[in-house]
Amino acid sequence: MGWGDLGVFGEPSKETPNLDQMASEGMLFLDFYTANPLCSPSRAALLTGRLPVRNGFYTTNAHARNAYTPQDIVGGIPDSELLLPELLKKAGYTNKIIGKWHLGHRPQFHPMKHGFDEWFGSPNCHFGPFDNRALPNIPVYRDWEMIGRYYEDFKIDLKTGEANLTQIYLQEALDFISKQQASQQPFFLYWAIDATHAPVYASKHFLGTSQRGLYGDAVREIDDSIGKILKHLQKLGISENTFVFFTSDNGAALISAPKQGGSNGRFLCGKQTTFEGGMREPAIAWWPGHIPAGGVSHQLGNVMDLFTTSLSLAGLQPPSDRQIDGIDLLPAILQGKLIDRPIFYYRGNEMMAVRVGLYKAHYWTWSNSWEEYSKGVDFCPGQNVSGVTTHTQEEHTALPLLFHLGRDPGEKYPLSFASDEYQRAMEQISVVVRQHKVTMVPGEPQLNVCDKAVMNWSPPGCEKLGKCLKQPKSDPKKCIWPH
Amino acid sequence: MGWGDLGVFGEPSKETPNLDQMASEGMLFLDFYTANPLCSPSRAALLTGRLPVRNGFYTTNAHARNAYTPQDIVGGIPDSELLLPELLKKAGYTNKIIGKWHLGHRPQFHPMKHGFDEWFGSPNCHFGPFDNRALPNIPVYRDWEMIGRYYEDFKIDLKTGEANLTQIYLQEALDFISKQQASQQPFFLYWAIDATHAPVYASKHFLGTSQRGLYGDAVREIDDSIGKILKHLQKLGISENTFVFFTSDNGAALISAPKQGGSNGRFLCGKQTTFEGGMREPAIAWWPGHIPAGGVSHQLGNVMDLFTTSLSLAGLQPPSDRQIDGIDLLPAILQGKLIDRPIFYYRGNEMMAVRVGLYKAHYWTWSNSWEEYSKGVDFCPGQNVSGVTTHTQEEHTALPLLFHLGRDPGEKYPLSFASDEYQRAMEQISVVVRQHKVTMVPGEPQLNVCDKAVMNWSPPGCEKLGKCLKQPKSDPKKCIWPH
Repeated sequence: MGWGDLGVFGEPSKETPNLDQMASEGMLFLDFYTANPLCSPSRAALLTGRLPVRNGFYTTNAHARNAYTPQDIVGGIPDSELLLPELLKKAGYTNKIIGKWHLGHRPQFHPMKHGFDEWFGSPNCHFGPFDNRALPNIPVYRDWEMIGRYYEDFKIDLKTGEANLTQIYLQEALDFISKQQASQQPFFLYWAIDATHAPVYASKHFLGTSQRGLYGDAVREIDDSIGKILKHLQKLGISENTFVFFTSDNGAALISAPKQGGSNGRFLCGKQTTFEGGMREPAIAWWPGHIPAGGVSHQLGNVMDLFTTSLSLAGLQPPSDRQIDGIDLLPAILQGKLIDRPIFYYRGNEMMAVRVGLYKAHYWTWSNSWEEYSKGVDFCPGQNVSGVTTHTQEEHTALPLLFHLGRDPGEKYPLSFASDEYQRAMEQISVVVRQHKVTMVPGEPQLNVCDKAVMNWSPPGCEKLGKCLKQPKSDPKKCIWPH
Repeated sequence: MGWGDLGVFGEPSKETPNLDQMASEGMLFLDFYTANPLCSPSRAALLTGRLPVRNGFYTTNAHARNAYTPQDIVGGIPDSELLLPELLKKAGYTNKIIGKWHLGHRPQFHPMKHGFDEWFGSPNCHFGPFDNRALPNIPVYRDWEMIGRYYEDFKIDLKTGEANLTQIYLQEALDFISKQQASQQPFFLYWAIDATHAPVYASKHFLGTSQRGLYGDAVREIDDSIGKILKHLQKLGISENTFVFFTSDNGAALISAPKQGGSNGRFLCGKQTTFEGGMREPAIAWWPGHIPAGGVSHQLGNVMDLFTTSLSLAGLQPPSDRQIDGIDLLPAILQGKLIDRPIFYYRGNEMMAVRVGLYKAHYWTWSNSWEEYSKGVDFCPGQNVSGVTTHTQEEHTALPLLFHLGRDPGEKYPLSFASDEYQRAMEQISVVVRQHKVTMVPGEPQLNVCDKAVMNWSPPGCEKLGKCLKQPKSDPKKCIWPH
């Protein structure tokens, strides 16, 4: 989902009344980012509070490449990483993930081996349908075991766009919340639903209800579901004791637009890129009785902050034996403070850009290669900023391209290198970048090796269902990451 | 000002708290248009309720050209046109225009000859400073007479961007409203301020206060002024008896962005074009106690509707001896009805595009010529949709380019000509267009002839000020309209 998909962020159809109301009852973050323009690294960053280059969710197979966890990925979240649910356990929290895990699907990466007490959802995205020969369909787990597969037991009709997955995930959330409230146990619910990723779907009740087509139907269903979750918290009388945060893991996938992809408003490009459209996210904090209603924050925020902020809410400290990139947002949320901190934009282990205050400096620019672009892979459809949305990897480390995101949120007008403003801003930014690079200790890259043998052939529980598939011979190879 | 310049429409700095509040207390129009992508024709349409091609505010000098009322224009609003204030007089209204008139500056076009009782402002835009030899500075009028000139008596500092014009126009508005309330006279105030047109200015108090630079400072000053006007109405106890509508006369001038031009959000291109960025406008209706607070309307609206709606509010009927294009919006505003009506997008006397429901069909596409574009005149900076933002005039009358503005508000993905959806939509649209063209009776074009002799050399009142300038010999010529 992209920044521009919400009514409150100017989507012209204005079809997200529940999220808009969530914002009017809570706090809207206008300058909130993901840690990576792609799903898996972004989610690993959220749960570890650390940049992907530190927690291992990146590749070194080629320069400045986005990578994630497809079915044949060998790597996943390292045991050495401390995940938010692992830490929350110390404060007595019950942790549940509903939806897409995406931090590795081999046994050692199972979310319940990394702090979650319950899981309902899938390890990978709902790509398919596959033939279970060249590629197995993606399993859906309940806790330790697979209970079915997408397209087989969990239907997705690609012709009509109908699937009731979001309704299933909603019901799981409501049930979990009820159970926790009944047992008076504190809880962490990571509602990481699989929509609105392509192939896009919505349940029957929402099909055809949006001005925006199928993608809009999916957004409306999510909006409706979030409204139901918030009302459920209120009905149970625990809304003033429950912190809720809504955001997305990357910008809208413009490559799939308009039928299967959303909007990043007026920001440049989308998912896969380190322009604002790829990494600036819709973000709303909600906590009635604590967060002033209708608040708006210009705090530079990041999904990694949810790690540190959640620990803070639970009265816990973040680990002190490692670099944590997330900050505690509570002073921004509860007292309206502005905390000075940079935002880093990475592809692979290359820092492509950095934001300091309202300035954003691009040290590298790249949308994708001419080769991919000529095949129709376009991350910036209808947009073309000369020298900025480049199709070759352009190095600007000696003289970064600088934008003022207040005057120019669309990254269309680089500042003149000769201007005083450029000089002053870059002096400040250079210090931040130097310090960042000097102290950077990259983790072991997890997204380098792919092997068909590690795919979801026989997840635990497959015997009971008669759904164990034949695993091919192991043949590990470097994964190909074209972008 | 553009659609994307307001916080409530997703401007990322969210710096228009008063307009956002006006929307939350009133009704936001998401699908509201101007009648032309340029100032003068748009304003003539607002005041006559008629398309520029009917009221004469267009040119036939070349095909599909935008035209307005620069200093050397010979034409202006014809006497045969009935303006809103002329009609409101019949219901006892006192009518005042504050700010830019722009419907012709020769004596016969004076706003007080066309129904206004009072005027404070200028006949043309605040271009300058001029040398008063080749070009005179633009006069500022109080009622019948010039009381000074821009840059001379009404300072605009182009270096610092400082000018207190908006403050002066605000004070005029507050005074007029107070006077009318004191005398218990109904009033029509046309607060047609000159900002945010380039060269952009703001008063000292607002300079440097926006994240968006000088343009944002100007927007903030307008926002603040509107807040003060609304509060004034409330303080005087007449807010429940006063209908207020906020909108703009064309999309943001992207040619002047980012320093001197605003944002059209995610819409394509800007001022001068018949893409959404050129003609979709921010629009808010406010009338406490009558309009439900926080309402949102998808009614297709147009500035011309303000003519008919205002007459309706005053209990008057629109003239029946001519074609009126504006509709009465009150059923949409007060009862939430959706009235079926098309939107026409013109350049000169060429119907470039039409919107029917969520479909928009382009019969002609053109941004500007290669010649102008090569000189740096770019109405779509950073945007380029192949075959759509064309630099030659492309005729599509046989097979119009069709967009679905719900799925594709950015006009990036024309529908396939072969699709059933295209066929169905075009059948419906063709009927609307045929009917429109058959009944169209163009007015006498007013914007064809230019003559240096008609410039603001010696406006009435110049003698008292010693500001009469020498008028050159008359030499009427065809005006050059490059776009």
